Amino acid sequence: MRATTIHGPRDIRLEERPAPTITEPTQAVVKVVASCICGSDLWPYRGENPIDSGSTIGHELVGVVEEVGGDVRSFRPGDFVVVPFVHCDNTCPHCRAGVTSACVHQGFTTSGQAEYSVVHQAEGSMVKTDGMPDDAMIPSLLTLSDVLATGWHAAVAAGVRPGSTAVVVGDGAVGLCGVLAAAELGAEQVVAMSRHEPRQKIAEQFGATHVIAERGEEGEQKVLDLTDGVGADAVLECVGTDGSMRTAFKVARPGATVGFVGVPHGVELPIRRMFQRNVGLAGGMAPVRTYLPDLLERVLSGRIDPGLVFDLTLPLDEVAEGYRAMDERRAIKVYLDV
Amino acid sequence: MRATTIHGPRDIRLEERPAPTITEPTQAVVKVVASCICGSDLWPYRGENPIDSGSTIGHELVGVVEEVGGDVRSFRPGDFVVVPFVHCDNTCPHCRAGVTSACVHQGFTTSGQAEYSVVHQAEGSMVKTDGMPDDAMIPSLLTLSDVLATGWHAAVAAGVRPGSTAVVVGDGAVGLCGVLAAAELGAEQVVAMSRHEPRQKIAEQFGATHVIAERGEEGEQKVLDLTDGVGADAVLECVGTDGSMRTAFKVARPGATVGFVGVPHGVELPIRRMFQRNVGLAGGMAPVRTYLPDLLERVLSGRIDPGLVFDLTLPLDEVAEGYRAMDERRAIKVYLDV
Repeated sequence: MRATTIHGPRDIRLEERPAPTITEPTQAVVKVVASCICGSDLWPYRGENPIDSGSTIGHELVGVVEEVGGDVRSFRPGDFVVVPFVHCDNTCPHCRAGVTSACVHQGFTTSGQAEYSVVHQAEGSMVKTDGMPDDAMIPSLLTLSDVLATGWHAAVAAGVRPGSTAVVVGDGAVGLCGVLAAAELGAEQVVAMSRHEPRQKIAEQFGATHVIAERGEEGEQKVLDLTDGVGADAVLECVGTDGSMRTAFKVARPGATVGFVGVPHGVELPIRRMFQRNVGLAGGMAPVRTYLPDLLERVLSGRIDPGLVFDLTLPLDEVAEGYRAMDERRAIKVYLDV
Repeated sequence: MRATTIHGPRDIRLEERPAPTITEPTQAVVKVVASCICGSDLWPYRGENPIDSGSTIGHELVGVVEEVGGDVRSFRPGDFVVVPFVHCDNTCPHCRAGVTSACVHQGFTTSGQAEYSVVHQAEGSMVKTDGMPDDAMIPSLLTLSDVLATGWHAAVAAGVRPGSTAVVVGDGAVGLCGVLAAAELGAEQVVAMSRHEPRQKIAEQFGATHVIAERGEEGEQKVLDLTDGVGADAVLECVGTDGSMRTAFKVARPGATVGFVGVPHGVELPIRRMFQRNVGLAGGMAPVRTYLPDLLERVLSGRIDPGLVFDLTLPLDEVAEGYRAMDERRAIKVYLDV
């Protein structure tokens, strides 16, 4: 099959690899219909994470079931499925508590940007649609495998409540989905911190009531001004750097929670400030499967259209250009037609 | 007046100081009936915090109102009051949100271990009893000014719920009050991590269902064994050191929250672990005033007896011995008869 591989910093290739096969009865093989590039794929691309040279990459996908193992009873070949990037049995104590991303049988999609991919706990992880969805629906369905669920998790972890003021730090695709989530969860004021006009526009389409273009102390002051000096009721940290985390804690009101979903890189938490102001931190790797039934319903009913985060569509053959476009911030999020 | 002062590491004295006077209409002066020594007083005592040589020390007290400023309408001389260590107006946005420890008019008790003390926001901060309480009730009332409210805050921040398993890291007076709080909030299993027999006994009186004497990895494994490998639903971190924080995160189940109330010293939060397991951190300086009406009722009704944390009573004149006893862990918490 054709599969995206990474060989070193900024060295993405499309190569031939053996198609995956089922090695455990809990697995399924899915023929990928659409995939995309995640902000977290840029960490190894930029050399910030160790790379196993020549390994496949990509963890977001929707597709059609090709083959299922003997323990997979709810799916059959031909089903159209959303595949969460983190796989779970959906029955263990952590799954039952809603933390499906910490399943005792945790697995990951590792060849999402390819023609085929394995789902390790297919029965517990996958969610199918009734029949084949319209082509126009596929981008939004694809966001359910990671980016929308991750932005949603930031909002849930931050404790966004109806009538509240939510601030979203980060205007990548996850941050934009965080804006959508905060609005859906009833925040009255949704503040997107973004200085890039195309992203500001999507933020507004997703429900942002305010956009703050300033960064650092100036941006933090704007949030305080907007909230009569009180700070935000909920803050979504959707980047994962030390600077974004500091901003998140600076704009949070005492007693608030920072919901974080950006994989932390070089973050030193301001524990003294957290202590003095009683600002908590919650979140982490999104329990995608937990949110899927609700989010799928919101997408299928047309209530939300998270597929708008894709502003560049490329065929799988041009995946390397997709990485370049995201690395150079020429694209917010790249959709790969497989 | 006689007042406890600190002059350097391990240099506690009882000295004559001018009695405080009212300088703002929001203040009251309280004649101290009973005070005590806090674990956090040991930080400057041990030279771990900077010291302003010769300054008064002590922040926990109950007493009788001596004089009130013009804006203080609900109290009059002769009222017996509990004084939260952190003062608040109880009307600002942070107070209204329950975070009275971050009041915009925040103040602190600074001469608690003395004959008189000033309360900066007396109207908002103090809570009075109907008439003079029995002498036997005073130790428990004294715990309301800090230690019980702080242990309570750990349990609330950790999200202790009925039927849950709560682990308390730290067997100081705050940790013991955390045990009491977790039990009162309905935890079915309350695990006290303590290797000191007298503290274990109080923990059991306060509702601990399990005591784990082992520390470090061995103790962490015991919690996992006790919870079928799942981890605790809620963890109360009542120390403030890096080691205790690490243990807290190790024993928390995915999706749990560590409630922290120990003033952090040299703590580096395990953010990667927090991310991977979705374990949050909440808490900080306890909003004592917020909890006071409820806790006062529990004490006055005889439902709880937090005064049991005091295992050494000394007259104010012997305050220096009190510090030595706590420093050397000969006493859990020292009650000062003023």
